[in-house]
Amino acid sequence: MANRGKPAYVGKMAGRHFLNTNDFSQREISDILRAARDLREKFRRGRPTNYLPGKTLFMLFYNRSLRTRNSFEAGIYQLGGHAHFLSPSDVYTPTLPEDMIPYQTESIADVSRVLSRYGDAVAIRIYGDAAKWHIGRGHKVIREFARWSSIPVLNMEDDIYHPFQALADMMAITDVAPKPQGKKFVVSYAYSGGLKPLAVPQSCILIGTQFGMDVVLAHPPGFELEDHVIEACRRNVEQYGGSFTITNNMREAFEGADFVYPKAWSPKKFFPPYNSAVDKEGAARYQDGFKDWICTPELMDLTNRGRYMHCGPADRGQEVVDEVIDNDRYSLYFQQAENRLHVQKAVMSMVMVRGR
Amino acid sequence: MANRGKPAYVGKMAGRHFLNTNDFSQREISDILRAARDLREKFRRGRPTNYLPGKTLFMLFYNRSLRTRNSFEAGIYQLGGHAHFLSPSDVYTPTLPEDMIPYQTESIADVSRVLSRYGDAVAIRIYGDAAKWHIGRGHKVIREFARWSSIPVLNMEDDIYHPFQALADMMAITDVAPKPQGKKFVVSYAYSGGLKPLAVPQSCILIGTQFGMDVVLAHPPGFELEDHVIEACRRNVEQYGGSFTITNNMREAFEGADFVYPKAWSPKKFFPPYNSAVDKEGAARYQDGFKDWICTPELMDLTNRGRYMHCGPADRGQEVVDEVIDNDRYSLYFQQAENRLHVQKAVMSMVMVRGR
Amino acid sequence: MANRGKPAYVGKMAGRHFLNTNDFSQREISDILRAARDLREKFRRGRPTNYLPGKTLFMLFYNRSLRTRNSFEAGIYQLGGHAHFLSPSDVYTPTLPEDMIPYQTESIADVSRVLSRYGDAVAIRIYGDAAKWHIGRGHKVIREFARWSSIPVLNMEDDIYHPFQALADMMAITDVAPKPQGKKFVVSYAYSGGLKPLAVPQSCILIGTQFGMDVVLAHPPGFELEDHVIEACRRNVEQYGGSFTITNNMREAFEGADFVYPKAWSPKKFFPPYNSAVDKEGAARYQDGFKDWICTPELMDLTNRGRYMHCGPADRGQEVVDEVIDNDRYSLYFQQAENRLHVQKAVMSMVMVRGR
Repeated sequence: MANRGKPAYVGKMAGRHFLNTNDFSQREISDILRAARDLREKFRRGRPTNYLPGKTLFMLFYNRSLRTRNSFEAGIYQLGGHAHFLSPSDVYTPTLPEDMIPYQTESIADVSRVLSRYGDAVAIRIYGDAAKWHIGRGHKVIREFARWSSIPVLNMEDDIYHPFQALADMMAITDVAPKPQGKKFVVSYAYSGGLKPLAVPQSCILIGTQFGMDVVLAHPPGFELEDHVIEACRRNVEQYGGSFTITNNMREAFEGADFVYPKAWSPKKFFPPYNSAVDKEGAARYQDGFKDWICTPELMDLTNRGRYMHCGPADRGQEVVDEVIDNDRYSLYFQQAENRLHVQKAVMSMVMVRGR
Repeated sequence: MANRGKPAYVGKMAGRHFLNTNDFSQREISDILRAARDLREKFRRGRPTNYLPGKTLFMLFYNRSLRTRNSFEAGIYQLGGHAHFLSPSDVYTPTLPEDMIPYQTESIADVSRVLSRYGDAVAIRIYGDAAKWHIGRGHKVIREFARWSSIPVLNMEDDIYHPFQALADMMAITDVAPKPQGKKFVVSYAYSGGLKPLAVPQSCILIGTQFGMDVVLAHPPGFELEDHVIEACRRNVEQYGGSFTITNNMREAFEGADFVYPKAWSPKKFFPPYNSAVDKEGAARYQDGFKDWICTPELMDLTNRGRYMHCGPADRGQEVVDEVIDNDRYSLYFQQAENRLHVQKAVMSMVMVRGR
Repeated sequence: MANRGKPAYVGKMAGRHFLNTNDFSQREISDILRAARDLREKFRRGRPTNYLPGKTLFMLFYNRSLRTRNSFEAGIYQLGGHAHFLSPSDVYTPTLPEDMIPYQTESIADVSRVLSRYGDAVAIRIYGDAAKWHIGRGHKVIREFARWSSIPVLNMEDDIYHPFQALADMMAITDVAPKPQGKKFVVSYAYSGGLKPLAVPQSCILIGTQFGMDVVLAHPPGFELEDHVIEACRRNVEQYGGSFTITNNMREAFEGADFVYPKAWSPKKFFPPYNSAVDKEGAARYQDGFKDWICTPELMDLTNRGRYMHCGPADRGQEVVDEVIDNDRYSLYFQQAENRLHVQKAVMSMVMVRGR
């Protein structure tokens, strides 16, 4: 079908999965952000964007969600399509071969092939308890869906990557700094008593290095991110310029920063495959030694009039104080949340078109 | 944007919250009912009413629901829009500052501001267990949403008000009596073994007095409604005429009535802030003393060929016998339920329009 | 309203319930399949099929589902309508008079009458635990909905019939054999450790005999289907030709078969009304004696280049081995699943039209 009256980006990446920003080139990510800005402008002006009429998005949530669920469901609707909200308990839980429970689960291979015949994309969120806290198992589930699916699979956050959040973040950064190259972007650990996956910080440093920023990863000892992600960041620096450094000092990291992203994650050494068993208590106890990793106005004053970022929901009083997150001088918090809508609409517009 | 081809009521109360009928003037409520009749007529004729294309309604249900959920979801769809059905367990439960539980809840302030960026209205139901049986806490949750929201907040029933039910009820009344002034409207306690909020009787007496009816509130001792609502009714009488009286005698109340609304609620003196603790057992035990407050054909015969009303679901055999509720000569039960659809579509059409 | 620009089948069976294929004539079923093929062709070409604009489908799932839920929700959307996904815990569970629990349930009579005023069809799934394993109770629930509903009721699988699956199956059969008369269709028990309703095999033998096929029902002793269904099959043979035989030998049944449908069900003699109590353990123990009833390539080689069929989800390693179900030479498995979408869209297009 011709693409009459639709922007050129509709269908531009037809049929592709979106699992990790680093699977795409800087140019492709820039195309997505440009499409997102077009869609944001049209949303604000109340212009129709009926680019995916009749298209169905299956959303499979193994974890709860506010931003992701509502931005995807509203987003596909604003594009003229429709989303199904599926919780695993409503279906026979789609499961990896090694985890099958007779009469309660169904193989991902079968679920993925069936859904491919009814609609146009499958979006999945799975991490933490839903992925048994075996780091990489959530991502493996999503890869298994993608292996069998003949329609695009979209990663709504797994235990390694959160690619749509990274897109929303880079959109917020480039709203402030249209040329982000050479800007200092600090992705820092911040304390929370809760157990959190590695997905957000890992996707943040990946997209920062992909755009030639001076990326600084700050965390206490024991909070190292995964080696394969660190290596991908170093390869990004080689390809795109900028720099990538790691420090154990939050204060030093914040000095002169243009953007700071203080966010909790849990130390991987307490979880498989980095540990022989899942040790939630050990992780929580270890984390509790770092309650001073909190983002305050004093820390913000060390930056280069830097902007505060967080994917939400932030643990107020632990990761950050209200005086930072609710202060428009610092905070991009609500803009990041809003951008989720626009970047997701951009990717859906680009991939959810096919000849059947 | 111009409102081409749309009725004049679309956008007439753009951006307003709808939390309590008494926040609106009699003239405004009449405008809503007129719009509801227009929408009902078009619904029955199968005419399109595509007045809110691209608009998203977030429905947040802390309590279960048949009529409310289905009438809102079908209603926004019939207007060309789309609803998200959100149960608190699907999101991080939006919570008042004093009730936050780390990693399980998110502040209403944040949820409300995020949703404001994705869609066009937030509808909320919260009472009973979900509001911890502290009377007024559910309404406080809704007020907190409204405080932070830049899009309209709609009260789908809290522990003080059920304004859309009251609209549906007044629509049913004015179908029968186009000029309700001076008609006798009896809002009476009726027995149920279940624990029920005060919202329906309170919103009933408010809208009855707002339309100049002769409103009689009948209940056993101990079932007093809240003082601030009683006072608002007295002010309505001053402003709009009619009368407002309270009696402890169901039989006397029914005599000569044009409309009777026998409906259970639970005695407030067993719940905070009217009691130091939540005493469900005490309330249930106290209620059980009033099993003779049941609507029968014998009682209906005392009325002025009066009509039976109930918001549904009625507890058959406790609040009312089948011979009344299923008898078309008496009962407005299914018409009230249907009117929910029309009045909600009216209010949504009037408030869910904005320049972004 | 005129049916301008819409195919002639839209509204052709306006207002009818769809509870059992055998309530319809062979000619009517053929009309449905013809409509389904038209809709499948348009779906594959990406053509719009906006035949039910503004129509609302209420889907009430007492049981979990992948294919049924997603194919109905995507299907009504592709027709321009909208589905509500309702789980009984979200509403006050609609319940038969004898099963009412105060304050948790609402009578089906009331729920059905209320929904009739908001939308255009009610689809229901109920069997197994949700129907208390009293065979026929699920079907009774659906009949009770139909009794009170003024809009079409659609059976999404109960404990006696699964009519939409049977339609999808006959569509798959007639894709391979446009004239199915005289083709050998084997509906066979196959082992599963799970407890399964009788609905699929019963609807299979009903539609097979309705199309004049040589239907062979194969099962071990104790797995007899219900007498009233067997009798209906014999009446179908009298009316439509073909044959209907029952055997206890899976191997003999497969010889020369054109289509085989090996599928688990549970022996009815362990459940009311065929037993005085629900005896799940007894049923499971009895089933476990028949693990050799499994569909293998060796069995498939006995057929007349026969095709493997299953409604899904198949219990791999119990009912069938991967070498059969995943082999395109044998398997119609994914085509059957896809056909669910098309036949359901056909029936909805035909029945969900009314003058209000």
